[in-house]
Amino acid sequence: MIARSDCVALDEGDELADLRQEFTLNEDEIYLDGNSLGPVSRAVRTRVNEVIDNEWGHGLVRSWNSAGWMAAPTRIGDRLAPLIGAQPGEVLVADTLTFLLAKLVGAALDQRRERHVVLTDVANFHSDIYIIQAMCARAGRPITVKTIDRNTLERELNDDVALVELTQVDYRTGESLDMKGITAKVHAAGALMLWDFAHSAGAVPLDVTDAGVDFAAGCGYKYLNGGPGAPAFMYVRKSWQGILENPLPGWLGHARPFDFELKYEPAEGMQAFVTSSPSMIALAALDGALDVWDRVSMAQVRAKSLALTDLFIALIDERLAGVFDIVTPRDHARRGSQVALAHPEGYGVIQALIERGVIGDFRAPDICRFGFTPLYLRFVDVYDAVDRIVEIMTDGSFRDGRYKARLAVT
Amino acid sequence: MIARSDCVALDEGDELADLRQEFTLNEDEIYLDGNSLGPVSRAVRTRVNEVIDNEWGHGLVRSWNSAGWMAAPTRIGDRLAPLIGAQPGEVLVADTLTFLLAKLVGAALDQRRERHVVLTDVANFHSDIYIIQAMCARAGRPITVKTIDRNTLERELNDDVALVELTQVDYRTGESLDMKGITAKVHAAGALMLWDFAHSAGAVPLDVTDAGVDFAAGCGYKYLNGGPGAPAFMYVRKSWQGILENPLPGWLGHARPFDFELKYEPAEGMQAFVTSSPSMIALAALDGALDVWDRVSMAQVRAKSLALTDLFIALIDERLAGVFDIVTPRDHARRGSQVALAHPEGYGVIQALIERGVIGDFRAPDICRFGFTPLYLRFVDVYDAVDRIVEIMTDGSFRDGRYKARLAVT
Repeated sequence: MIARSDCVALDEGDELADLRQEFTLNEDEIYLDGNSLGPVSRAVRTRVNEVIDNEWGHGLVRSWNSAGWMAAPTRIGDRLAPLIGAQPGEVLVADTLTFLLAKLVGAALDQRRERHVVLTDVANFHSDIYIIQAMCARAGRPITVKTIDRNTLERELNDDVALVELTQVDYRTGESLDMKGITAKVHAAGALMLWDFAHSAGAVPLDVTDAGVDFAAGCGYKYLNGGPGAPAFMYVRKSWQGILENPLPGWLGHARPFDFELKYEPAEGMQAFVTSSPSMIALAALDGALDVWDRVSMAQVRAKSLALTDLFIALIDERLAGVFDIVTPRDHARRGSQVALAHPEGYGVIQALIERGVIGDFRAPDICRFGFTPLYLRFVDVYDAVDRIVEIMTDGSFRDGRYKARLAVT
Repeated sequence: MIARSDCVALDEGDELADLRQEFTLNEDEIYLDGNSLGPVSRAVRTRVNEVIDNEWGHGLVRSWNSAGWMAAPTRIGDRLAPLIGAQPGEVLVADTLTFLLAKLVGAALDQRRERHVVLTDVANFHSDIYIIQAMCARAGRPITVKTIDRNTLERELNDDVALVELTQVDYRTGESLDMKGITAKVHAAGALMLWDFAHSAGAVPLDVTDAGVDFAAGCGYKYLNGGPGAPAFMYVRKSWQGILENPLPGWLGHARPFDFELKYEPAEGMQAFVTSSPSMIALAALDGALDVWDRVSMAQVRAKSLALTDLFIALIDERLAGVFDIVTPRDHARRGSQVALAHPEGYGVIQALIERGVIGDFRAPDICRFGFTPLYLRFVDVYDAVDRIVEIMTDGSFRDGRYKARLAVT
């Protein structure tokens, strides 16, 4: 039996333990939803107020140059690049994930004009599918978007497939896909590969360079803790830069923005994929949130992430065997940084837990999601969370009629 | 001769004078560039920190519902609506101006499928032209984008014109176009009308309802003071809602975002034009910036704006007759809230003025732009600014070789 004292010992030996103090967390609450929205860090507050008070407040319009605002999307992109194994000059931060996917899907389709199929995962996050369909509808040729079972990908690949888009970690099950293996198969069919890293960046080690990934995009507000609706990031492999064209061009992506030319001419490198100036306040929050990542390696984060999810799974096995279906893979190679427990009354489970101070979330039809974020979670948090899950499953409070009523109106 | 004491008297009688204390402005500096980037107000600081500390910091993921984040784009849109004469439910704030124009151009083209021409102004801000061209290239039929002299618009209108896009106040000359008259002509030809309000919102009174405008968009960081790269706003006339389709759909625009449906089904009203969740920190800044507008009417703002620009023009006439070509219309009905002075060495003029603490900006090839923003500018500021313009034109410092070198590398 795993005891609470074992978890205390694990925390005492945790080399990342000090990082927790950088974050604002509520007393008496266990936050297992950093995979949806990461918490505020001290550096975010500092950096945002520095932008408001000094750069905007005193520098005013001059700060476009003097405070480096023009270059902020690529500068902060370079800070983020190591988290996905990208090189300097391959990442930018701006906009939102959906807009960045729109740019990449549109641009990729233009590079495979003789092909008419885009493949994506039927289990993909739904808005990825919406924007793929929307950009395909505007590609200038008929394109079929096939939402397939990702396990049948190899069978679906042929010389009519222009692009494959997959989310690297499944938002429901937490399964992590084999990025390198899948990318190689897609390339063997002559198609291009676009990865969505929404649940991957800051959660699992990624090496886009080694995996030969063409394009990727992800969001800044989950494991990266950049704030609600934070700017997103996109990756374009160096070898594609200067070839790939931004289908949603704007001022800041022009080679000479201050020449106000009627004809668009793209800037060099990732700058060509900047459309408008993103909010400098929103960028400042993400910039501040990246500070803590300078103090850890993804190898450290991954080791603790697996230890936390292993512990959670072991405790559920030990204390609630048969109550939940653990849908997240037990195989480390296939696991992201969350654990999903399926239960027919999953909505009630999550609501009852929130009332006891354990914050997870529910994804229809039956998934209870728990995110494990190594920067600020302790091993005792995992122990205490399972304690409360045992409580609500034992006392039956997850069956409260109030929860059913709320589910009906969601 | 206008004396400085006359300006002091005007300030004493100014009913908007108190609003200046809401803003951060540098001592010994006259900021005539609020038409490019408005300054920070006290409410911005307060509201941003409230979002960071309380809504995000403590509410965490719950704030999507409990703090009203889901509805923020339309709630703040409703606050902004009166500034353009829109009704509740016709405005949203999100994204950036270029993305909102992309949505509106794409959507408008889909409503006039039998037509093949889009008209815009050759003097338009260049990124409007880029995004119009980009969306036309993806409309699914051949479309010609004609960049015309706006004074020839009537001649160019015919039954092949799908859409006309114009910027209501010219960013260089400060000329304000006759929104109602032009919209009527465009409609008479069966085309749709899209206005860019970048230099209009908060600068001139607008009545989209009375003018029968179909669609409009504008930015939040100029006269609205929402911060660098602030979220933009868009207007869709009520009668178009439910008909017009968002060409860049996303999660938050779905009728039931938490049902995670594979098929996109638009939400009702303006919500359908929200793509992703915008940055709540960036929205908070804009939200705070709108507070000051609750205390003034656009009629008051307009009266002071015209008084400020009249004074500036009169002082230039009086003290620098023949030195500059005043390209902004003297006719009130055709004047925005800026004054543009053309001078062959305009770049040097602006640089020399910045060194003397008067912040304006330069637009190629020869325009010195001065924005007059009634919320925080005093009549004495206008007087003192002209004093310094007289100084640098008299002592010849605008001809400094350093400025020429900087222009060459811009």
